[in-house]
Amino acid sequence: MESNKPSLFTSLSPALLHLYDVSSSIVVIIDVLRATSTIATALHNGARSIIPVDSVSECIRIGKQIDSITAGERDGKVAEGLEHGNSPFEYPSEFIGGKTLVLTTTNGTKLLQMALDNNAKTIIAGAFVNLTAVCKFLIAQKQNVILGCAAWKDRVNIEDTLFAGAVIHKIKKHFSINCDSSKMAETMYDDAKADLFEFIKEKNISHYQRLSSFGLEKDIRYCLTEDLANVLVVYEEGKLISKTF
Amino acid sequence: MESNKPSLFTSLSPALLHLYDVSSSIVVIIDVLRATSTIATALHNGARSIIPVDSVSECIRIGKQIDSITAGERDGKVAEGLEHGNSPFEYPSEFIGGKTLVLTTTNGTKLLQMALDNNAKTIIAGAFVNLTAVCKFLIAQKQNVILGCAAWKDRVNIEDTLFAGAVIHKIKKHFSINCDSSKMAETMYDDAKADLFEFIKEKNISHYQRLSSFGLEKDIRYCLTEDLANVLVVYEEGKLISKTF
Repeated sequence: MESNKPSLFTSLSPALLHLYDVSSSIVVIIDVLRATSTIATALHNGARSIIPVDSVSECIRIGKQIDSITAGERDGKVAEGLEHGNSPFEYPSEFIGGKTLVLTTTNGTKLLQMALDNNAKTIIAGAFVNLTAVCKFLIAQKQNVILGCAAWKDRVNIEDTLFAGAVIHKIKKHFSINCDSSKMAETMYDDAKADLFEFIKEKNISHYQRLSSFGLEKDIRYCLTEDLANVLVVYEEGKLISKTF
Repeated sequence: MESNKPSLFTSLSPALLHLYDVSSSIVVIIDVLRATSTIATALHNGARSIIPVDSVSECIRIGKQIDSITAGERDGKVAEGLEHGNSPFEYPSEFIGGKTLVLTTTNGTKLLQMALDNNAKTIIAGAFVNLTAVCKFLIAQKQNVILGCAAWKDRVNIEDTLFAGAVIHKIKKHFSINCDSSKMAETMYDDAKADLFEFIKEKNISHYQRLSSFGLEKDIRYCLTEDLANVLVVYEEGKLISKTF
């Protein structure tokens, strides 16, 4: 029966998250280009955990306190004082295995903090590279879900919306979805799914322009490919970890 | 040259309007079901002006001060103390010609007030019923544009997004559009344009559910039809008026 199913909503921007009942929901943090893709990749490749922080200075401070690798970019370059960037290709298993990564991201970390401040039941991180793990988890939990797009400085972006649509496409029969944003996300994904890369290239979306101008088409292609790093990423006690369930 | 064109952005919710440079732009207030459709219809049918207000009590107060018709609904019924509802069919020319309408709407009026507070250069009201008038005006002005969706209590809705997409579909070559929300809106419209009514019915969007449960399918069909009340609606000195340019 429809009414017995848990609800699913999509928040297209952190500036809209307050409209949804975060405290009764699992919140999926979505930052496809590239934070949550890189996080899933590093954990899939054996990183012990990832500590997300919101500023370069915080990243440097924590990096000095614990044995870790610091990473983050500003304007497409490794930020001054940090060691590595935001590309998933920087974190193969021979490099990241067994290590802790302290990663500064702007949009994703802001959304994560908002989910924490609003007492989200559970927080996980999602991207195309771990799509199946996210969907399996959400179906199994039988709880309300909010798909939270990190967006770009609060402006709605297409790549995070497409990922929300991909999740909805796969799990919608298990949820009651009375949410126009979710229906928009699924419509977008239906249009794009035959070739996600071509879709965002043809639309010339904002983030494609930014990243391709830095020569990062390879990153974009990776970040749009399903299940290349298919681990469930859960936020627990200040850290993102890979978890089986 | 691309860079010489004025910019066009779409704000999918009033909660996102602050992200855009309102003070340098024409803001189009979009509340397809049914406020801006009814406003255009009343003006097309000869109403002298429409005074938009945000509460029933304000509507009653102004109705007592000036010779006017008061209108507004709450939960699908004419609000207590007011004379008429939000349906465009309530305002034929033999009734509304030469009269002033004081109309209370929630979402549309909130967005209008935000545009005023942020010193919008010009404010106009748009809906499918005056699509061509809106597009002609925007092309002629050669100024930056923000398509402002009134949404539903700040939640993004599909019908206002579709109208933004319809405008973009018609005028995009005259503007520089670096805005994922606009690209989403256009994609949605491209999907829906063959039969807007069937699209929102099949998606079972939130507002379709609300209005069709009140037997208002006829209103929805009207509000999704282009150019049935093709007047330019401009906000000036507290009133919405029809204007030639």
